[in-house]
Amino acid sequence: MNIKAGIVGATGYTGVELIRLLGSHPHITIETVTSRSEAGKSVADIFPSLRGVINNQYVTPELDSLSTCDVVFFATPNGTAMESVPALVSTGTKIIDLSADFRLKDPVVWSKWYGMEHKCPELLVDAVYGLPEINRDKIANAKIVANPGCYPTAVQLGFFPLLKNQLVEPVSLIADVKSGVSGAGRKASIRHLYTEVSDAFAAYAADGHRHLPEIKQGLQTVASDEIGLVFVPHLVPMNRGIHATLYASLKDKKTDLQKVFEDYYQHEPFVDVLPCGSHPNTSSVRGNNIVRIACHKPQNGNTAVILVVEDNLVKGAAGQAIQNMNILLGLEETTGLMATASFP
Amino acid sequence: MNIKAGIVGATGYTGVELIRLLGSHPHITIETVTSRSEAGKSVADIFPSLRGVINNQYVTPELDSLSTCDVVFFATPNGTAMESVPALVSTGTKIIDLSADFRLKDPVVWSKWYGMEHKCPELLVDAVYGLPEINRDKIANAKIVANPGCYPTAVQLGFFPLLKNQLVEPVSLIADVKSGVSGAGRKASIRHLYTEVSDAFAAYAADGHRHLPEIKQGLQTVASDEIGLVFVPHLVPMNRGIHATLYASLKDKKTDLQKVFEDYYQHEPFVDVLPCGSHPNTSSVRGNNIVRIACHKPQNGNTAVILVVEDNLVKGAAGQAIQNMNILLGLEETTGLMATASFP
Amino acid sequence: MNIKAGIVGATGYTGVELIRLLGSHPHITIETVTSRSEAGKSVADIFPSLRGVINNQYVTPELDSLSTCDVVFFATPNGTAMESVPALVSTGTKIIDLSADFRLKDPVVWSKWYGMEHKCPELLVDAVYGLPEINRDKIANAKIVANPGCYPTAVQLGFFPLLKNQLVEPVSLIADVKSGVSGAGRKASIRHLYTEVSDAFAAYAADGHRHLPEIKQGLQTVASDEIGLVFVPHLVPMNRGIHATLYASLKDKKTDLQKVFEDYYQHEPFVDVLPCGSHPNTSSVRGNNIVRIACHKPQNGNTAVILVVEDNLVKGAAGQAIQNMNILLGLEETTGLMATASFP
Amino acid sequence: MNIKAGIVGATGYTGVELIRLLGSHPHITIETVTSRSEAGKSVADIFPSLRGVINNQYVTPELDSLSTCDVVFFATPNGTAMESVPALVSTGTKIIDLSADFRLKDPVVWSKWYGMEHKCPELLVDAVYGLPEINRDKIANAKIVANPGCYPTAVQLGFFPLLKNQLVEPVSLIADVKSGVSGAGRKASIRHLYTEVSDAFAAYAADGHRHLPEIKQGLQTVASDEIGLVFVPHLVPMNRGIHATLYASLKDKKTDLQKVFEDYYQHEPFVDVLPCGSHPNTSSVRGNNIVRIACHKPQNGNTAVILVVEDNLVKGAAGQAIQNMNILLGLEETTGLMATASFP
Repeated sequence: MNIKAGIVGATGYTGVELIRLLGSHPHITIETVTSRSEAGKSVADIFPSLRGVINNQYVTPELDSLSTCDVVFFATPNGTAMESVPALVSTGTKIIDLSADFRLKDPVVWSKWYGMEHKCPELLVDAVYGLPEINRDKIANAKIVANPGCYPTAVQLGFFPLLKNQLVEPVSLIADVKSGVSGAGRKASIRHLYTEVSDAFAAYAADGHRHLPEIKQGLQTVASDEIGLVFVPHLVPMNRGIHATLYASLKDKKTDLQKVFEDYYQHEPFVDVLPCGSHPNTSSVRGNNIVRIACHKPQNGNTAVILVVEDNLVKGAAGQAIQNMNILLGLEETTGLMATASFP
Repeated sequence: MNIKAGIVGATGYTGVELIRLLGSHPHITIETVTSRSEAGKSVADIFPSLRGVINNQYVTPELDSLSTCDVVFFATPNGTAMESVPALVSTGTKIIDLSADFRLKDPVVWSKWYGMEHKCPELLVDAVYGLPEINRDKIANAKIVANPGCYPTAVQLGFFPLLKNQLVEPVSLIADVKSGVSGAGRKASIRHLYTEVSDAFAAYAADGHRHLPEIKQGLQTVASDEIGLVFVPHLVPMNRGIHATLYASLKDKKTDLQKVFEDYYQHEPFVDVLPCGSHPNTSSVRGNNIVRIACHKPQNGNTAVILVVEDNLVKGAAGQAIQNMNILLGLEETTGLMATASFP
Repeated sequence: MNIKAGIVGATGYTGVELIRLLGSHPHITIETVTSRSEAGKSVADIFPSLRGVINNQYVTPELDSLSTCDVVFFATPNGTAMESVPALVSTGTKIIDLSADFRLKDPVVWSKWYGMEHKCPELLVDAVYGLPEINRDKIANAKIVANPGCYPTAVQLGFFPLLKNQLVEPVSLIADVKSGVSGAGRKASIRHLYTEVSDAFAAYAADGHRHLPEIKQGLQTVASDEIGLVFVPHLVPMNRGIHATLYASLKDKKTDLQKVFEDYYQHEPFVDVLPCGSHPNTSSVRGNNIVRIACHKPQNGNTAVILVVEDNLVKGAAGQAIQNMNILLGLEETTGLMATASFP
Repeated sequence: MNIKAGIVGATGYTGVELIRLLGSHPHITIETVTSRSEAGKSVADIFPSLRGVINNQYVTPELDSLSTCDVVFFATPNGTAMESVPALVSTGTKIIDLSADFRLKDPVVWSKWYGMEHKCPELLVDAVYGLPEINRDKIANAKIVANPGCYPTAVQLGFFPLLKNQLVEPVSLIADVKSGVSGAGRKASIRHLYTEVSDAFAAYAADGHRHLPEIKQGLQTVASDEIGLVFVPHLVPMNRGIHATLYASLKDKKTDLQKVFEDYYQHEPFVDVLPCGSHPNTSSVRGNNIVRIACHKPQNGNTAVILVVEDNLVKGAAGQAIQNMNILLGLEETTGLMATASFP
């Protein structure tokens, strides 16, 4: 099988990661790679790690060429995909959007958090939220997959088993989450200079981060009562990786968290529940599509503490996008995604 | 004024930091620096950053020479100070212990967490917990100051204003805390190799860390009801710095957190309450004795989120020890501790 | 084809990297993984990045089980392989030794640098130095492949085109080389703690490093006159990567270095000569088997400056070992080694 | 004594470091801090590490207010100081320029490397190159001090003893130099993002860096014959620090390098010659004004290898500027500059 893929906006870390991972996929040909700013330049000239991997030059995005692709990934800033997706999806090309444009169901909420009008609110209903562990069947039939954000992937996968089984008070959720710097993207800024970030640690957006409504929307779908969530993101001086430390009040102290998580994820190829007492390290998922989770109940009290790690560029972005593509195209879900994490 | 100081066990990062900071103190002479393992070697040969700063050689610790000092700092592993403090304190020398030996009031609790019998439980009553912001008067008259742990300093200073003013449910406390690697000390281990720690993030001791009883003991002294605390420490790939992200349920959503904190700390020389909406960065206290705090109430809900940063080797160890020494000896509390943080 | 491989001493970073890379090799089954210290434990328990990749437990190394393997990799400390290789090689099992035991031809020189007697000097003649770019044919017929050191791989590949074509004064060679910390291995030590290495840079072993005789031996084989080499290694606060900055006096200022290097390496699958004016970054080879090289002639003077990067754990160790294995077993040389570098 | 100082362009790391160091200087009041882009904002709002240290707001630079200062530091981008220095110097205010505007004596060479016309070439004659170890007397009487670049400080201090004593071939000099990222300044750029720099190492400007003519000009003043220098800078993933590895051909192999360096620098307060066999680490000078040097003669050959470390923001910029100010104003040269390096 030979599937033609396009990548729109491939000058950021997510786009480069898509190219890296697709390079190991046996059924994909990267047909077109677009960038308005770098059109005419060779992809590998800008990203030397891709020398010998891809010969494409960046081209300006055009409907004609994109519509010859079986699937098009949007690795664009928020607000870009919604401009061209309506025309492209009507040609039958499948869309996997790694930006936030199709993640929220309510265009009013979307506008509030993203600061602009949504250009195609009518497509929000059909877009499928691409978290396979909760939405696998819908993804298989989607035209547009809204690939989840990096924080929402980790936080939702950590809370789902607790909420679905009604084991915790839905109003008591706290997500203290830490991210590597690649989550901030590849754009000129003082705030993410090496000198500002290294040997330093801080929270940001404690009063409200754009991923908050996305997480709440997802958790609400499995919860019996209204969700209450405090979400505080932090920046860690590391390239890749997200570590979510999740807190929730157990309804019953005696809940066997380990069994709950092992049962819930027993058939999932990319969720690894660690043995009791473990502390997953982001370095154990560096470069691969796996989420590792460990459960704790400190001092046998009534607080569940769930630790979740993922690579924000893989399961939190490009890897999950390829997982979604595999589902969408009827391939084995793990195709091209089985490389071992790189340590150290 | 010329004060003679001794440092016992100065081959770790805390000992080196004491020497660095005392080098800027106008009234101190470092009389003796001990180490059993390095006796006979020059301090500056082992720590080249101290070349030109200190000419001492390490000597084996002896009561005779230590008792000629006005004050002796113990920068030893847990379980060491309690061996020699009883004899030394009886000579009139003041003791500032940077280890955990005199921090807990209950020797049974101490034994449980530190895995050995306490050698001088009778001294625990007299030892004063050296957190000046809460115990300044007692420190002034102490014979033994138990210098607080690095985590407990940050966590207690963040929760005190809330508990003292009875603004939060004492049973609802969560401390999600992140530390630089110098907190793990300077000893040969695989776990803290550069290759294990860098570009990586993980929690540890989620089921119970030795600083938990210390924090609970301290918070309990200001709380009206019994404290419930979940404390999860994490290791950050950075040298210095602690960032505590503290969560508590407000009794009244309308509480003006900013005012509470500004009022509570208005006279404290080493506690800096940042403006509303701030996110303190550990890099803003690198190398100095200041704690910076910011308050948040996300989505105007009923969860207070308090962000606290300190340098774990300074306010979390050696700087606080010198602050305690200044109080103990009747010096201006800030003497020798006013250097500006180093950024970047 | 199904090839049975054994790994002796797989508790270090090189062993883990072998397991990672062999996991992507279509023809290999890892039959046995040995460690005296960890025997009985699961490999994946000690290295969580390998969970789901390998089910083996460590076993103590035994001739009986190792001799059932087609090929055995030694990822042991120096001085270990020479103990068991004589017996093992006589069973017909092919040996690829990643330690230094079989790299030097002269056992007297070996003893001088490694501080012990060589146990099987008679095998040194037959052992083939496993640098495919210079020794491909001999490797194909070897019984024992001495896999090159990480520094020697980078330095030799950078100097070979100059020496082979007699373009520089052989007595004038300077190799100023910088290595990531994984090159120091995975053993408890103060010197390589995060706190000692991070935000820091220093040279080491400027008066003589064990890789010096290995590099000189290799360069001498292609040089017309006697080699003079100054080799200064440095430690960089990064996990992986070697950057060699090489200096040599050109016999003729007008030499077209770019053409020399492009011609010399035109058929090599793992050597990438960058365009004129480039500065290769270790991040462009993170995790893969490629060496990238750029040539400079500053101010059009008579000094050639050659910049070489590799991943010390891949082309500098485990990747090159697999490249050698492919050659030895008659497989396509690039099998299992084509993964794209991971950036960032 | 109360000296009024002004800082022009204090929104970069060099300006912040000046403020940090001047904060420990007993005789200085910072009168004015200028920035066109940040005028009206509080310095400490932009740099939280300076909270409590400085109350100034940024103002736009004006001759009237600057000329009330005894000394004005320019911490501006290249090409800015030369615009306002002519007017300011004529008011009698002493100038210490941390940019490159007054470092080169030849305006033609300056224009070639800095890409613009020099605005006051007539002042280049009077400007004194502010390397106290070679120019102390002239600095004492200067009106304009051209504070040296970070690389030139380390490289010149390493080569001076060899050249002055005519011990090496002046044509054979190689400077392989490695710098922390703060040397690149504080401006929005992709190239110096955390994600681009961390866990990575590369050379840059191998074909010619702006500090080359400055170094050659300085070395030439002490050399008997014409200098030949190859200078290759590299970027290290660390915040602060420069490590120069210097190579030169000895005229006589038997030269006692250790004695040469110890004699040459015996009276220098800020140059520390380490014992034989040492490898200075940038971490040993983190935050202070000291240069540490070690000499090697590998394999007793005829190549001198000199290792030099400094903190690029202190001895390589702000610290040296204050050292120059002390000399200029007749203060003890070490005033305010004796803080101990911070480790780790």
